[in-house]
Amino acid sequence: MRFPQKAIVLLSGGLDSATALWWAVHKKKWSCRALLFDYGQRHRKELISAKKLATRVSCPTQTVTLRLPWGGSSLLDKTKSLPSKPLNNIGKGKIPSTYVPARNTIFLSYALSWADVVGADHIVIGANALDYSGYPDCRPNYLRAMEKVGNLGTRQGTEKNRPPKIWAPLLRLTKTKIIKMGLELGVPYELTWSCYQGQSTPCGQCDSCQLRAKGFHQSHHADPALL
Amino acid sequence: MRFPQKAIVLLSGGLDSATALWWAVHKKKWSCRALLFDYGQRHRKELISAKKLATRVSCPTQTVTLRLPWGGSSLLDKTKSLPSKPLNNIGKGKIPSTYVPARNTIFLSYALSWADVVGADHIVIGANALDYSGYPDCRPNYLRAMEKVGNLGTRQGTEKNRPPKIWAPLLRLTKTKIIKMGLELGVPYELTWSCYQGQSTPCGQCDSCQLRAKGFHQSHHADPALL
Repeated sequence: MRFPQKAIVLLSGGLDSATALWWAVHKKKWSCRALLFDYGQRHRKELISAKKLATRVSCPTQTVTLRLPWGGSSLLDKTKSLPSKPLNNIGKGKIPSTYVPARNTIFLSYALSWADVVGADHIVIGANALDYSGYPDCRPNYLRAMEKVGNLGTRQGTEKNRPPKIWAPLLRLTKTKIIKMGLELGVPYELTWSCYQGQSTPCGQCDSCQLRAKGFHQSHHADPALL
Repeated sequence: MRFPQKAIVLLSGGLDSATALWWAVHKKKWSCRALLFDYGQRHRKELISAKKLATRVSCPTQTVTLRLPWGGSSLLDKTKSLPSKPLNNIGKGKIPSTYVPARNTIFLSYALSWADVVGADHIVIGANALDYSGYPDCRPNYLRAMEKVGNLGTRQGTEKNRPPKIWAPLLRLTKTKIIKMGLELGVPYELTWSCYQGQSTPCGQCDSCQLRAKGFHQSHHADPALL
């Protein structure tokens, strides 16, 4: 019997990371662990979604609690207003106020740490560089640089010569293609949460809501979370 | 009047990071902020030293509290014994049990985050690749890879085109040379704490104590922390 390879999947509870988890479990057939972050995000309720999603694929979770004492993002501060650009301007121009300074670098660092302890060969992140908000830490070059850090700075990468690979299976997909792929893989999108406002129902106005709505519209599916 | 450049200095409270801080303040004349980590280290009392050191050079501090739920290091677990190799074997062969998985990657990620918020051009780390315990995340190639991550994954590095530079001024120095440099810069070594055992006095047996003792011995100075 061949044991499946191990993967750490960053799971926010949103549409993208859920799709990435289903891809890792059902397409790659990896034995997955999900890494969740309580980082003071205003939409912390996404963690409830993340746990439900992980349970659905029998994936154990770890939640890292962290705070950035220096703040620096409207996503961490409920007194700040969230941007709501017209859809065709999202991701163009300046980095938006929802950018959390070095967030993916911090998240991937923890993933590298966990991978080093459990001997995981793969780290999966739902980063997307097409229908996204314009964050610098979602781009292909950045992810390659981070992978190199894992190769050089961990026990796995050096002593054991099994450098963890960083996978971003959604990187070059439009939101529509992500949703199509997820529906084929059977992602229960009704469990996911995307809205940056962490209220009882999605606001429909923030970048994240708008990108999600566009994706479902163009894939000719109703968003099951809104039914 | 020219404003001084800003730097974030990782400060553990040990000998190396104290020297790095004095180098940044007195040699580079940077306006420094010190970044401290309470990560569950058994020698958490080093944070008291770090704060005293920062105060001495009027350097504001931020302490990030974090925990690695997966452990994975004898430095995080008081029930595990610490290695105490003969001095001439420290850093040779396998990565020791005191290695904290991806620690410097996590620490530098937070530093990149803070640098992005305050607009710091420099990050300083007391990493050393000569008289050290054999950690993979202390090596030149690793630090270069991490700098690239900062260039590609932050607001500073992309939108503002002011990528933060990572400095490791002690990287290629022996412990003896570090101490000589520090004494010239006026580092109050009596305030520093190196011992991995966080007890009332240094154990004298752990890698960190042995490397420190060797450094003072070879620089023909008494260790002021032991007087």
